[in-house]
Amino acid sequence: MIKVGIVGGTGYTGVELLRLLAAHPRVELAVITSRGEKGAKVSDLFPNLRGQVNLAFVEPDDAVLQGCDVVFFATPNGTAMNSVPALLEKGVKIIDLAADFRFGQAADWERWYGMPHACPELLAEAVYGLPEINREAIRKARLVANPGCYPTAVQLGFLPLLEAGVVDPKSLIADAKSGVSGAGRKAEVGILLAEAGDNFKAYGVPGHRHWPEIRQGLTAVAGEPVELVFVPHLTPMIRGIHATLYATLTDPEADLQALFEERYAAEPFVDVLLPKSHPETRSVRGANQCRLAVHRPQNGKTVVVLSVIDNLVKGAAGQAVQNMNLMFDVPETTGLEGIALLP
Amino acid sequence: MIKVGIVGGTGYTGVELLRLLAAHPRVELAVITSRGEKGAKVSDLFPNLRGQVNLAFVEPDDAVLQGCDVVFFATPNGTAMNSVPALLEKGVKIIDLAADFRFGQAADWERWYGMPHACPELLAEAVYGLPEINREAIRKARLVANPGCYPTAVQLGFLPLLEAGVVDPKSLIADAKSGVSGAGRKAEVGILLAEAGDNFKAYGVPGHRHWPEIRQGLTAVAGEPVELVFVPHLTPMIRGIHATLYATLTDPEADLQALFEERYAAEPFVDVLLPKSHPETRSVRGANQCRLAVHRPQNGKTVVVLSVIDNLVKGAAGQAVQNMNLMFDVPETTGLEGIALLP
Amino acid sequence: MIKVGIVGGTGYTGVELLRLLAAHPRVELAVITSRGEKGAKVSDLFPNLRGQVNLAFVEPDDAVLQGCDVVFFATPNGTAMNSVPALLEKGVKIIDLAADFRFGQAADWERWYGMPHACPELLAEAVYGLPEINREAIRKARLVANPGCYPTAVQLGFLPLLEAGVVDPKSLIADAKSGVSGAGRKAEVGILLAEAGDNFKAYGVPGHRHWPEIRQGLTAVAGEPVELVFVPHLTPMIRGIHATLYATLTDPEADLQALFEERYAAEPFVDVLLPKSHPETRSVRGANQCRLAVHRPQNGKTVVVLSVIDNLVKGAAGQAVQNMNLMFDVPETTGLEGIALLP
Amino acid sequence: MIKVGIVGGTGYTGVELLRLLAAHPRVELAVITSRGEKGAKVSDLFPNLRGQVNLAFVEPDDAVLQGCDVVFFATPNGTAMNSVPALLEKGVKIIDLAADFRFGQAADWERWYGMPHACPELLAEAVYGLPEINREAIRKARLVANPGCYPTAVQLGFLPLLEAGVVDPKSLIADAKSGVSGAGRKAEVGILLAEAGDNFKAYGVPGHRHWPEIRQGLTAVAGEPVELVFVPHLTPMIRGIHATLYATLTDPEADLQALFEERYAAEPFVDVLLPKSHPETRSVRGANQCRLAVHRPQNGKTVVVLSVIDNLVKGAAGQAVQNMNLMFDVPETTGLEGIALLP
Repeated sequence: MIKVGIVGGTGYTGVELLRLLAAHPRVELAVITSRGEKGAKVSDLFPNLRGQVNLAFVEPDDAVLQGCDVVFFATPNGTAMNSVPALLEKGVKIIDLAADFRFGQAADWERWYGMPHACPELLAEAVYGLPEINREAIRKARLVANPGCYPTAVQLGFLPLLEAGVVDPKSLIADAKSGVSGAGRKAEVGILLAEAGDNFKAYGVPGHRHWPEIRQGLTAVAGEPVELVFVPHLTPMIRGIHATLYATLTDPEADLQALFEERYAAEPFVDVLLPKSHPETRSVRGANQCRLAVHRPQNGKTVVVLSVIDNLVKGAAGQAVQNMNLMFDVPETTGLEGIALLP
Repeated sequence: MIKVGIVGGTGYTGVELLRLLAAHPRVELAVITSRGEKGAKVSDLFPNLRGQVNLAFVEPDDAVLQGCDVVFFATPNGTAMNSVPALLEKGVKIIDLAADFRFGQAADWERWYGMPHACPELLAEAVYGLPEINREAIRKARLVANPGCYPTAVQLGFLPLLEAGVVDPKSLIADAKSGVSGAGRKAEVGILLAEAGDNFKAYGVPGHRHWPEIRQGLTAVAGEPVELVFVPHLTPMIRGIHATLYATLTDPEADLQALFEERYAAEPFVDVLLPKSHPETRSVRGANQCRLAVHRPQNGKTVVVLSVIDNLVKGAAGQAVQNMNLMFDVPETTGLEGIALLP
Repeated sequence: MIKVGIVGGTGYTGVELLRLLAAHPRVELAVITSRGEKGAKVSDLFPNLRGQVNLAFVEPDDAVLQGCDVVFFATPNGTAMNSVPALLEKGVKIIDLAADFRFGQAADWERWYGMPHACPELLAEAVYGLPEINREAIRKARLVANPGCYPTAVQLGFLPLLEAGVVDPKSLIADAKSGVSGAGRKAEVGILLAEAGDNFKAYGVPGHRHWPEIRQGLTAVAGEPVELVFVPHLTPMIRGIHATLYATLTDPEADLQALFEERYAAEPFVDVLLPKSHPETRSVRGANQCRLAVHRPQNGKTVVVLSVIDNLVKGAAGQAVQNMNLMFDVPETTGLEGIALLP
Repeated sequence: MIKVGIVGGTGYTGVELLRLLAAHPRVELAVITSRGEKGAKVSDLFPNLRGQVNLAFVEPDDAVLQGCDVVFFATPNGTAMNSVPALLEKGVKIIDLAADFRFGQAADWERWYGMPHACPELLAEAVYGLPEINREAIRKARLVANPGCYPTAVQLGFLPLLEAGVVDPKSLIADAKSGVSGAGRKAEVGILLAEAGDNFKAYGVPGHRHWPEIRQGLTAVAGEPVELVFVPHLTPMIRGIHATLYATLTDPEADLQALFEERYAAEPFVDVLLPKSHPETRSVRGANQCRLAVHRPQNGKTVVVLSVIDNLVKGAAGQAVQNMNLMFDVPETTGLEGIALLP
């Protein structure tokens, strides 16, 4: 059994990790920490876990965490980096669901997250945990930076086009829409049901933290700097991201459908729909899936890719478990076979 | 393996049956029928099942169904009764998710469903599939009438009070609220998002078909005719029923909390919350659970019970699978361990 | 023109007051105060008011408020009572949308709101602002306590029954459902879209502050102490209250439909629907209306009344404007003619 | 008074026309027709209109309609064209909310709406009713083709850029999101609350009827054929369109904010927000407003315009009333002063 610790499990990625790990046949949930909820039963905070998870939140304690095989950090940005070096030294593997280890350059972290990095020396070692790109590196990693939710949906959609070199890497537009759980379980007026319900808006158009993360990933794929416009929107639903992606075709002869199908033929968690399809976010609700469709409207110069994920699963906790499976040489789909809930 | 057939799988109880049965370790999905969708792949209609269920809908065919161990009817009311006698004769067990076999008296069926019964001789044999009341009879049954969604939530809430005789059986009020999936996957204006969204209303106050079903069940429990006022409401959500139940206490000394805890101590799918709790429908979203809380406001004469289920799971498909497990001597919780999706 | 001041206009009752008063032909909006938002333009906080209200929030200033004809308090409970005596002394009329002046007895205030009352001597003078009961007293009042949202919906529904003496005043049950705007514009986890969306629950069953308010009002109507069970629920919508009311009939000959129609024949803002109707909350969305239907299911001993209002209009700001119209001898419907927004 | 007839008032544009016209001080609602609902009271279908509109639906009758000053067609596409010639001949003015008269070329109509045009000779006369472009022509028109909802939001957003010639007209992308009322009040499974709720998807990517309409309009504005990619999405809300528009800047010196502010300075129903703003659909809910913001992310080559309207108001019925005001020389804002409902 893999002995698992979770640091900071009171948010939505935390409860989703618990839901997945509680049912994972190879996992023993050893400890879950939270300063704020210390002493509270996990199932009092998240009643769906009654009868499933009997742990209570405890104060973070290095000794206990150091006895784990792997520790997931479901903490705010800038938290994990303070604890990771000591844990790694004790031989504990790390999966960080926050942004601390996503950038190769500490300068990028500092610019976008507004604080110095506590252990820049680890950035080169950390592996960006998108298995569809980095599977082999993840298998060998001690430290995995789990991707952001938007970056997962956007990168998986652009990937086949950039790898094949059939679009202009200076022409990328990602118009992305997220359910409100992406904003976290935080007491903020803007994500109240009375504010965000029956309402639609863009946000962060001048600059969003996921923009440099996506750009870094796609630049690596393209082998040259990409130009990307990224516009996120808040949509009145709980879970789900829909990314609508635009790029200018440079090879008008490309068979886009075949390109996508071949690229993802062996991927257990990426599903390419038939031509002329429109994936729906609910088709992946609760499931570790990305569903994609590729279009070329009016046979013109613009490729349109539609990409959907559940932001809390393939966009966070599910992908983290997928990474854990790879790191511990467990079959990649273990504990991730759950079917999406529809309706 | 239990060889399973589904008749009429194009509605919400159908897709939910498929979701549960596709992951059931003891089930082989043999056939699913639909006249209207004949030839269509199940996963084209329900994209959450892509990669999970490879069947296509076929025309109902007696020969194929007769080769099954059990056939689920997820058909409109009044359909199953035409096919059930022949299947039973061939040794096929039946679980009907519609109302055809819920009443003991054909006259009740005829009054509330407006058509003669095709096989009234089977009504005495049919077992009402509420395991918390009829577990042993279900184990031996050939024909199970799966309860309605409201009747499940309401009966489980009143059960301990009536069995213990601590409330006046002439004083029952059930104020119930349902998500719109309870109305089915039907093209009707009233359940459009633009009509039912951001809106709340009662319906069927003069008379609803679940009223006589609940009354019949509670009368059997109480051992005398009950008087029941039942007011259903449509609430702007997809899944979930919340029943708020009122009854006049006749034994002011009764320890209500203990009564509920003891009655359901051994039940795998009924969860009694702590005193002063308020169960939420999302705590059972997608799960085969009923969660209950019992209150006595201001220590007065009225008991208030709060009861929540997912109308498609414990209120329909999940309970049907629970009944199948009992009928085939499989551990009762098999295939029903899924944790509710929250948020 | 009536010179109006608003104290504490940053919540939902505040923005709704502004929406109504900005279009009121007899009102001049003189000042709106908020400590927290001091200096901010009203329309920056509430973008629907762009081009409609050019005021900015200012620090509360007695001098300015004392120059008003009327001051609305849209403040948290326990705030208005500290400023009201001085304003009354200067001849300013007061409409308090909070609970400070709703109880006749200071002891009730103290028990349910947990603080001593700052001016108990004013409680006897304050008029409870439900025009359907207290119209003449409101006309002459200096100080009006605007009713709570639940109390408005519940009292208007029980009123004809209790006035006519056709139900047992010891048998009252109010099962009420509210949209989340009723909880206010507050940064709280429980009313996030990701928490309250697609979810339904009861709350406050052991005791809710609107229970003594309703009981006080109905006791006055009935002429004897009533017994009331009150169960509020949170429903995943923005605006609207639906109260489902139950009472035991003592006069089985009563013509309930006629009773309701006659009682409210002259009321501009109460609408009695035809027999067998089910009012919807959206039919009053944004409008100062209460719509009612009365039922007697199965011709039994229980009367069921369905009552809907918009909690922010007839349940708060609209009723406050209605009270203002009465206090300043303006036609009662002035500024309140807006038609509900549907869909 | 302007004597108004409405043909086909049972859909959402119909009820919205009724809401606006019932409160319009210069309008007399003479007749509303519907074959399907003949005899039904308007307020039985739309309970928000109880006490406001006392008409019943009548069978379409040429004589009655011919006595009107103006007839609004809120009918399915392809209906109005059969009745319009005779009405025009009698001197009745026409505002068609459907697509029958939106195209200059009958061939476009036939290709996209799949039927021959009944009166192609009127297409040259019909004026496209976007007042921000065609105000003077509308004043003199007998026949106005009211724009589609998406076309209104998209054209108002691109207008200043194309008029000023600061973007490449071959580079236009419109990523648009609509609430479900845009699909109409039709009994269709895809727009049920249980299907479209808590879900997000694109649709019509291979080709949508609003694409040629937008392209025609923008081509006229640009003075050359534009290239446009148009991707509509269904978002789980009732009202509102959010169009996110992308175009490649050709004049990097252009002051985009000033361009938008100047273009719309005199427009009563177009509101340009401050730099770095993000308009929300709820800020125009129920109001005849378009709110716009213009961005240039990372100071790059792509302009991003955010444009919101209420699809039923500025996108349909409100714009129709605005056109009527122009045609009858009534102040343009008459009857359209209603403030958006927020929250």
